[in-house]
Amino acid sequence: MDTFTATTARMMRLRSEIAAHPEQHRILTGERPTGRLHLGHLFGTILERVRLQTAGVETFVVLADYQVITDRESPGEVRENIVEAVRDNLAAGLDPERTVFFTHSSIPELNQLLLPFLSLVTEAELHRNPTVKAEAQDSGRALGGLLLTYPVHQAADILFCKGTLVPVGKDNLPHVEMTRTVARRFNERYGAVFPVPEGLVTDSPELPGLDGRKMSKSHGNGIALGMSEEETALAIRRARTDSERLIAYDPERRPGVAGLLTTAATCLGVAPEEVATRIGAGGSAELKRVTTTAVNDFLRAHRERRARISAEDAAAAIRAGNARARGIAVDTLDEVRAAMGMRYGF
Amino acid sequence: MDTFTATTARMMRLRSEIAAHPEQHRILTGERPTGRLHLGHLFGTILERVRLQTAGVETFVVLADYQVITDRESPGEVRENIVEAVRDNLAAGLDPERTVFFTHSSIPELNQLLLPFLSLVTEAELHRNPTVKAEAQDSGRALGGLLLTYPVHQAADILFCKGTLVPVGKDNLPHVEMTRTVARRFNERYGAVFPVPEGLVTDSPELPGLDGRKMSKSHGNGIALGMSEEETALAIRRARTDSERLIAYDPERRPGVAGLLTTAATCLGVAPEEVATRIGAGGSAELKRVTTTAVNDFLRAHRERRARISAEDAAAAIRAGNARARGIAVDTLDEVRAAMGMRYGF
Repeated sequence: MDTFTATTARMMRLRSEIAAHPEQHRILTGERPTGRLHLGHLFGTILERVRLQTAGVETFVVLADYQVITDRESPGEVRENIVEAVRDNLAAGLDPERTVFFTHSSIPELNQLLLPFLSLVTEAELHRNPTVKAEAQDSGRALGGLLLTYPVHQAADILFCKGTLVPVGKDNLPHVEMTRTVARRFNERYGAVFPVPEGLVTDSPELPGLDGRKMSKSHGNGIALGMSEEETALAIRRARTDSERLIAYDPERRPGVAGLLTTAATCLGVAPEEVATRIGAGGSAELKRVTTTAVNDFLRAHRERRARISAEDAAAAIRAGNARARGIAVDTLDEVRAAMGMRYGF
Repeated sequence: MDTFTATTARMMRLRSEIAAHPEQHRILTGERPTGRLHLGHLFGTILERVRLQTAGVETFVVLADYQVITDRESPGEVRENIVEAVRDNLAAGLDPERTVFFTHSSIPELNQLLLPFLSLVTEAELHRNPTVKAEAQDSGRALGGLLLTYPVHQAADILFCKGTLVPVGKDNLPHVEMTRTVARRFNERYGAVFPVPEGLVTDSPELPGLDGRKMSKSHGNGIALGMSEEETALAIRRARTDSERLIAYDPERRPGVAGLLTTAATCLGVAPEEVATRIGAGGSAELKRVTTTAVNDFLRAHRERRARISAEDAAAAIRAGNARARGIAVDTLDEVRAAMGMRYGF
């Protein structure tokens, strides 16, 4: 059985386990609040969270504020980014009674887990980590201490709440390996405290940016969920296409056209080729009109709900989530101390 | 001015500053609770703490329990080692009303500082750190993540209480450099929150072990402060010397004899050559008798005070110290969050 088939089989098994016993699972997922959430986040991760919530699995969403400074000097508008991200999550259907939103920096007992966990891994293992390698390259800066140790901090995020499942993109299963290693080694050395979590590969479509490149906050090529319909139209109007009248789906040769076609198609729930056929010889202007309509129609209900959710509603959800997460972190740290012979009574 | 003279001049300035304004300073020092404290610790660090307490400087003593697992797999008898270390510190004259004893693992808000601080240093700087290099070599194991990041954790220990002075051995000034770097960079990036602490070189004598090698818990060549007089006599009787009758101070050629001479001399407050002259042709037996009497006489008062301090007294001192340290850590973390724009109100 090749890796692909093995993974697929494992995911099918996980999905049926979740369906049968959602109460036996807990999911840890997160947002890195470096900017506003866009359409790619909605399709890539948020709608999957909503499906898992509907299936009855409890989800913890970490607002990973310390992760913001792994590759930049300042956290920037981090509070606003956090609040807006939670507004989007709530607007998409996540229920703060069932899903726990918490800010990293608010949970000292979670962060303390970094220390015992760091003792379980070697420097060589930190270096080999694919997340660290990729992000260090992307940042173009000297590898910082926080980025180097980030995978272990991620293990603390996942294990503090005894998460069993971590949603990952289809190429990102290795990102869970460090957490699995930490959980296994801790249990071997000190006794069974943690579940060994599994990556849950989500088969959500990955939306390219308006320019056909990977959609990214730093490329500025996404449609933020919080944009107005006019702002959406403007962003699409500014997207770079070409002057060929006949619209066709050709990501290699016409990345800008393909980016818009995929965006429209994903919102319409059809294939990009079908959108291309509908437009035919309409050229870029027609492509942009179709895409704008598709996106705005798709996001209309989300945006209406979003408008009814205030920044204070989001803050209240985080406040409740932080209290919940902190209680769990205090208990887990206490268990960790006891397992390590460090529950002293002083 | 050469480095030695510059350092000496700086230490003279620091000492006179401390004498003039002890209330403007705060000291952070610590114990790594891997075993029992021995005579070398008393001369090397504890008596210096007592002098600084007498001078009126507030001292924080971290019982660095997480540091135990930087180079071994298990914390071992860590609670007992902590309690016994505090008994020795109290017996030596440290007053828990004026000196704060706290356990590392009990102060989550201190440990959380590791995260923002790690973002201020590069991996290359972690590698270059002399403590990490030396300890990694000594341990003979693969460099672990906790040891690699230990200098930054030490910065958190020193800076959480806004320590201004860190007592160090005469060759260990570089050990404070990482903390100075972290403090400076934090202040530059986010505003003035931390003092930039200075190493305070202590000119206490460094006592060799009974075998003439460096005294070390792992070599088992020290006289534990908590030993009885009989146990002390036995440890000295077992020390390896030689069969030459004429006792002389020659550390190169006769390390065992020199170790005992230095031990006796330090307890008697004289030079090792003078002890050798007193013994003359008495041989190892007389050397051991003289050393045993010197050590037991010197430690008698300490051991009597130690016997009156119960494990519960030590635990009570740590309990009070942990409460004090935690309050300070909560305040400092709050200040750090505010400086970084991360005091959210949720």
